[in-house]
Amino acid sequence: MSDPLKIAVAGLGTVGAGVLKILAGQRALLAQRAGRDVEVVGVSARDRNRDRGVPLDGYAWFDDAVQMARETDAHVVVELIGGSDGIAKDVVEAAIDGGKHVVTANKALLAHHGTALAKRAEKAGVALAYEAAVAGGIPIVKAMREGLAANRLSRVYGILNGTCNYILTTMRETGREFEDVLADAQKLGYAEADPAFDIDGVDAAHKLSILTSLAFGTEVDFSSVHVEGIRHVSPLDIQYADELGYRIKLLGIAGMTDHGIEQRVHPCMVPNDSPIAHVEGVFNAVVADGDYVDTTVYEGRGAGEGPTASAVVADIVDILRGIVLPTFAVPVGTLTAAETAPMGRHFGCYYVRLKVLDNPGVFADIAAILRDHRVSMEAILQRGRAPGEPVNVVLTTHETLEEDMIRTLNEIEALEAVAEPPRMIRIETF
Amino acid sequence: MSDPLKIAVAGLGTVGAGVLKILAGQRALLAQRAGRDVEVVGVSARDRNRDRGVPLDGYAWFDDAVQMARETDAHVVVELIGGSDGIAKDVVEAAIDGGKHVVTANKALLAHHGTALAKRAEKAGVALAYEAAVAGGIPIVKAMREGLAANRLSRVYGILNGTCNYILTTMRETGREFEDVLADAQKLGYAEADPAFDIDGVDAAHKLSILTSLAFGTEVDFSSVHVEGIRHVSPLDIQYADELGYRIKLLGIAGMTDHGIEQRVHPCMVPNDSPIAHVEGVFNAVVADGDYVDTTVYEGRGAGEGPTASAVVADIVDILRGIVLPTFAVPVGTLTAAETAPMGRHFGCYYVRLKVLDNPGVFADIAAILRDHRVSMEAILQRGRAPGEPVNVVLTTHETLEEDMIRTLNEIEALEAVAEPPRMIRIETF
Repeated sequence: MSDPLKIAVAGLGTVGAGVLKILAGQRALLAQRAGRDVEVVGVSARDRNRDRGVPLDGYAWFDDAVQMARETDAHVVVELIGGSDGIAKDVVEAAIDGGKHVVTANKALLAHHGTALAKRAEKAGVALAYEAAVAGGIPIVKAMREGLAANRLSRVYGILNGTCNYILTTMRETGREFEDVLADAQKLGYAEADPAFDIDGVDAAHKLSILTSLAFGTEVDFSSVHVEGIRHVSPLDIQYADELGYRIKLLGIAGMTDHGIEQRVHPCMVPNDSPIAHVEGVFNAVVADGDYVDTTVYEGRGAGEGPTASAVVADIVDILRGIVLPTFAVPVGTLTAAETAPMGRHFGCYYVRLKVLDNPGVFADIAAILRDHRVSMEAILQRGRAPGEPVNVVLTTHETLEEDMIRTLNEIEALEAVAEPPRMIRIETF
Repeated sequence: MSDPLKIAVAGLGTVGAGVLKILAGQRALLAQRAGRDVEVVGVSARDRNRDRGVPLDGYAWFDDAVQMARETDAHVVVELIGGSDGIAKDVVEAAIDGGKHVVTANKALLAHHGTALAKRAEKAGVALAYEAAVAGGIPIVKAMREGLAANRLSRVYGILNGTCNYILTTMRETGREFEDVLADAQKLGYAEADPAFDIDGVDAAHKLSILTSLAFGTEVDFSSVHVEGIRHVSPLDIQYADELGYRIKLLGIAGMTDHGIEQRVHPCMVPNDSPIAHVEGVFNAVVADGDYVDTTVYEGRGAGEGPTASAVVADIVDILRGIVLPTFAVPVGTLTAAETAPMGRHFGCYYVRLKVLDNPGVFADIAAILRDHRVSMEAILQRGRAPGEPVNVVLTTHETLEEDMIRTLNEIEALEAVAEPPRMIRIETF
């Protein structure tokens, strides 16, 4: 057996502690699988004395993670600090520049600096591995980079944020309001004290931008992702979705279109019989469509100590086995600058919920606006009548250009009989 | 860029033709991804003149695949002939002994000779890669060998045969009989002229025995798989399953139990809300449970030209990239001879359908037999009454030892009022 692979771990939150547990608990198994032992030569975190449920006395402690990345003789630096800049970035850069492989779970870092870091890693001849950054324990990066290597992908999409999926699932099951379910999720530890990153779709967008690069061989382009979160999804919309045969999911979707690459994160109505409609609670799922393999689906836990640490250690095992591949599956010099499809050119179906005064002539006004913008209605639902009172009217459309839809909604909103801004949710028929 | 990787393809059926198409059609993409070109230095098949939808004139033809494996200067021999012995085995052995990597889609070969061939490949220092042998286009071998490498697996199971899943799905959707749907499946090309391998569960058992080795680090032990097919599943059972909240699927299941490793292929009732209940038609799905990652699910097309060829080429790309791992994820010398759990010790729930004469006292006799064998009933369903006539009675049990269940069914069958052999389907609650 070769000499042990030396590892330094920067960041000892939930995932960092999980990594140390796996490396200790599965030591013999990992050595059997990879033909080589792992030795942790340094650990670093903000607070040395916090109880992490894992003994730290056997490891050399560093107050300064960057110094650890620079000065230890580690072969691999595992970055689990998080954040797109600051210490995390310094640690990763110091490791790479020192000829050390990097394993990270940091999606924000890759979303913002993925291409530059990939360039740096390639120049230094080291791995920049990040299985844990997307969809937690699901080995989706490996599947896309290796398992589907024979394919040109046309689309990749998925449920990329467990917090949102948990909230939407619970709202559907209980009929409760968003704010209410969010508060519970925070108590249960499924949502952060500051939940904005999750519920506003930013976390999913970080992950999507990474999947996009892997799928299409393009430079990471987080700033082009169209992002909407789930704050505005109401129990009423969920109920209507159910009635129409849909579930509401926050999806990240990246696809090749005639206008370039479309990257979008927003609530979607997906048909009940689509593979991801039944992915519930904190589970994530990713669907990748290739030209030869057709549709493939990957499902599992998208967060949490065990699943995320499992993905980090999978990357370590790859390095143990000598597998060092280009960060985004192809040499960084061959990544192309993607042409971004403007969201206005998105072509799809829409669900719209209006609150309108139940007056004669309102429908005629709405229908005229739809006609003027070439929006073709598929279905319209109004339950009960209440002359002179505001009632909910739901309509779904055939395929429509988003910019036409937006103009339509603006004009509808301006009608006097319309009591509140229209709610729009895109319908995806995979 | 390095010199091209030279490849010889033995067997030009659907999958072989698909491989040639991908290697030609994705040539630039593959070279970009792997940093190296692929050159086909030989092809071989039974009939040179068959139209395969792919031009063969650019390739050196060999009438004798074994000779090709032995004499060409290929780095990789792709074996797509099929069959557990005969030419396929000769080709693989000749390739390995000549220091050539092997890529194969041959599950029968691996199920019967996997350990011996792995030993041979390890000795020769070559890859024996077989992503296409299990679940077609789904990169499940890679997921288990690499993506989940941090985990000890407790169970792996799945829908491993698309023909059976297509038949069961169609039976459920149409209410038609097995024989009838099978005949249609044959016309559509979803089932072979001789369908026994598929519908009797042998093909699924081949695949399961491979997954078992990957999951548990054991020698391939196909002979220990308990195998039942789907010939006896009736529309009536499917209807009752639906009523009870289940779908009937042919599953392959491998798990660690107190009595050793259990490997079984048989029709199962799975709860409607389980991840694989909604995997329909020709799709396959595999679920792998690890101690850190928890449950992961992989879904996609389990057969067909494109998906299977996609998996073959993924293995080729691995070799292009220099990834050569032990056949069953660990050095072959460390594979253990698995202790097999006897099927009689299986502990689970059961669905039983009886055809009994609707006479007074019959239920009392059945209930006494159940009691005598410690079988605890969960539910009993009888629809309608027909004094003196045979009626269907369905019962489901709580967890029961299989050997107790078998004795119970034998005694019930011997009752005079029981008109035909009881039908039993195991219930799996994942």
